[in-house]
Amino acid sequence: MLETAQKIIDFVIAENMPQSAVKKALSDYHFDKSKTYHIMAIGKAAWTMAIAAVDFFCENLQDISLKIAVVVTKHGHTSAVADADWEQLQNALKNGKNPPKIHQKVHHFEAGHPISDDQTIIATEYCINLAENLTENDELIFLLSGGGSALFEKPLPGVSLADIQDISAQLLASGANIVEINVIRKRLSSVKAGRFAQLVAPAKIFAIVLSDVLGDRLDSIASGPTAADTATTEQALYILDKYGIKIKPQHLAYISQATPANITNVQTSIVGSVNTLCKAAAEISQKMGYTPYILTTSLDCEAAEAGRFLGKIASDTHFSRNSFVKPCVIIAGGETVVTIKGNGKGGRNQELALSAAKPIENLPNTLIFSLGSDGTDGPTDAAGGIVTGETIAKLAAANLNIDKILANNDSYTALKEVNGLIVTNPTGTNVNDLSVAICG
Amino acid sequence: MLETAQKIIDFVIAENMPQSAVKKALSDYHFDKSKTYHIMAIGKAAWTMAIAAVDFFCENLQDISLKIAVVVTKHGHTSAVADADWEQLQNALKNGKNPPKIHQKVHHFEAGHPISDDQTIIATEYCINLAENLTENDELIFLLSGGGSALFEKPLPGVSLADIQDISAQLLASGANIVEINVIRKRLSSVKAGRFAQLVAPAKIFAIVLSDVLGDRLDSIASGPTAADTATTEQALYILDKYGIKIKPQHLAYISQATPANITNVQTSIVGSVNTLCKAAAEISQKMGYTPYILTTSLDCEAAEAGRFLGKIASDTHFSRNSFVKPCVIIAGGETVVTIKGNGKGGRNQELALSAAKPIENLPNTLIFSLGSDGTDGPTDAAGGIVTGETIAKLAAANLNIDKILANNDSYTALKEVNGLIVTNPTGTNVNDLSVAICG
Repeated sequence: MLETAQKIIDFVIAENMPQSAVKKALSDYHFDKSKTYHIMAIGKAAWTMAIAAVDFFCENLQDISLKIAVVVTKHGHTSAVADADWEQLQNALKNGKNPPKIHQKVHHFEAGHPISDDQTIIATEYCINLAENLTENDELIFLLSGGGSALFEKPLPGVSLADIQDISAQLLASGANIVEINVIRKRLSSVKAGRFAQLVAPAKIFAIVLSDVLGDRLDSIASGPTAADTATTEQALYILDKYGIKIKPQHLAYISQATPANITNVQTSIVGSVNTLCKAAAEISQKMGYTPYILTTSLDCEAAEAGRFLGKIASDTHFSRNSFVKPCVIIAGGETVVTIKGNGKGGRNQELALSAAKPIENLPNTLIFSLGSDGTDGPTDAAGGIVTGETIAKLAAANLNIDKILANNDSYTALKEVNGLIVTNPTGTNVNDLSVAICG
Repeated sequence: MLETAQKIIDFVIAENMPQSAVKKALSDYHFDKSKTYHIMAIGKAAWTMAIAAVDFFCENLQDISLKIAVVVTKHGHTSAVADADWEQLQNALKNGKNPPKIHQKVHHFEAGHPISDDQTIIATEYCINLAENLTENDELIFLLSGGGSALFEKPLPGVSLADIQDISAQLLASGANIVEINVIRKRLSSVKAGRFAQLVAPAKIFAIVLSDVLGDRLDSIASGPTAADTATTEQALYILDKYGIKIKPQHLAYISQATPANITNVQTSIVGSVNTLCKAAAEISQKMGYTPYILTTSLDCEAAEAGRFLGKIASDTHFSRNSFVKPCVIIAGGETVVTIKGNGKGGRNQELALSAAKPIENLPNTLIFSLGSDGTDGPTDAAGGIVTGETIAKLAAANLNIDKILANNDSYTALKEVNGLIVTNPTGTNVNDLSVAICG
């Protein structure tokens, strides 16, 4: 059963790597030979997405004019993808099948995340300048991934990054949630809330999006540079009023201003997300003879409680006390939270998995795992955790009290002791988490 | 959709009332005309179960000899069932079709719950005396419901109720859980862990059980007076050792003693439980054209988190982002817990329902409810709560912040404001809780 789990893990990660996803999206797109194409990649997966797009052009679109444009990613995330990749890109430009039509090198920027910095502004200004020079004869391939909110930002004239941080801090202190904070922040930006799409016009945009936002709301992913905002001016003003936020008159004028309502120059393809993660898990499970059941793709409750719930579902499945028929794989995607009470080491996926151990105690042919698709779960070197019917006995044999471990948020320590860590190393993708119960 | 919810609620309660359940069990039982039957009812639903059994004998078993025996229930629970019922029982005895063979009146006792008291001992001694006088020519109809652990108790010679309470308190203070505490307590009792069945032998027992224990473990329901204990002597001694419990030598001798291993004079029928509650919900849903999905019948995590999880499942079902196909009803049975942080008013079912409101905000044809089958949810006059896609807007209109309400455990106040309380009054049954999402 551990091999079954490993096969699911390997498959879902491979299926959700940006490379294949970007290439698949491009292969479905209709390219116009009369146009010149530009690539712009923003976000934590920008580098891998850009490489994939360049590869695709070199391999499949030899007669299409391509101008490589710009990559904006997190500090360290260019070299993190390995110098080999940079070399690979350079070689593609130099020796690829498409060299004659590539007019310039990639401009790559590294910028601050999760807090924007000066490099953010410099990179974003470069992108804006490029966008403003595009004509009807151009098209932009816009590759977007998580982290774009911080990495792609240029406040409106008269607004500084410090202003935006001050307003955000006021909102947070007054009890506003992240959705409300983003409604306000977007209105102080020259590129968010669809404004970047306006700058690109009259050129068309093909946006390829790797989503790390539950529900795939396009105006939420990287604060929606190419997507119309769903929040109205009325709602924005209500938020300011509700929390009694102090704001300069000039900023208030910006917030009172409508954001682009109809964006007609953008076509979007969401190529990776927690949905594709769950679907991949269902696909490989079915291939292995298990009936797949996807419960949810937007799980966001407390990790430990989600684990207990999923554990009970698995246990009831084992005893045929619910609607799921063995052998089956029960799938929940999303991103849970951990309200930290102790000072142990762990992550939300490890805590979810460990919490599921008790409900499935002593059950044969029952396994539960949870992992972060980016390969990093909390401040640990594990991607997640894996438990079986034997886990509780193994913990007891190691003299570990599971209740105390969970109360101390020390899932890493306990799982390490019983060989229950999933280690993948950083995977290069980021499409939330996958929790799975296998009932054989 | 509210009517659909109401129909489900009405049906599941009716189907799980002890009356119909007891009669159904008796109608499936093979009665031996040569035997004399006795009825003994223990637990919070004892009174209603006893009446149902008497009714059944009067209506269907006119040629069977019946000696009404004894009812042991919680203080106030005899009269709570209404004096009319007592009168009804008397009338059954006096005027029923079975009067000639009824030899004596019911002996009814009210005793302490959740803490046993002197009345517990008196009532239990009466039952023991009766049991010891039964012969091969007798059979006992044993009607068991929740609360029996406290209501049916006679410590072994040399053990007092105070001794048992002291040991329980020591165990609790040392971090033992309720399962471990019960392993020890049972061994100090002359009626638990199957010992009462031994006292009844050589007479046979037909035990009809209304379960309030998740998983329906017979040795857990009312501490299993007629069920062999699944815990071994070795496990019991390990628990004492593990928590360093101080205990008198005589008591240690009892704990070292084996409990009855093979109990051969008992036939058991579980007539009501959270499983039958969930199955009833599935049955009525299917009749109304909804596909029923039972997720679990042993949900026991935090109420608010269970609500968020169920809310997400409902929301993903609405948007066809999971494996459940509309129109459907998604069912979870069990008994969640509330870790109280605030000082508001509410119950676990109301908190579960209210927590599900946010995930289904603005969704049409989506409703979630949760109710306690006993009709009482926490220290409130409600049985549970009900929310729809409109609930959040209604709360906002009433100037209620759902996050603050939930942080204060004040679900009753909020639900009352938006017409979201389920009020059934005490139902007369007790088979845990039912949480349901209706996706139309």
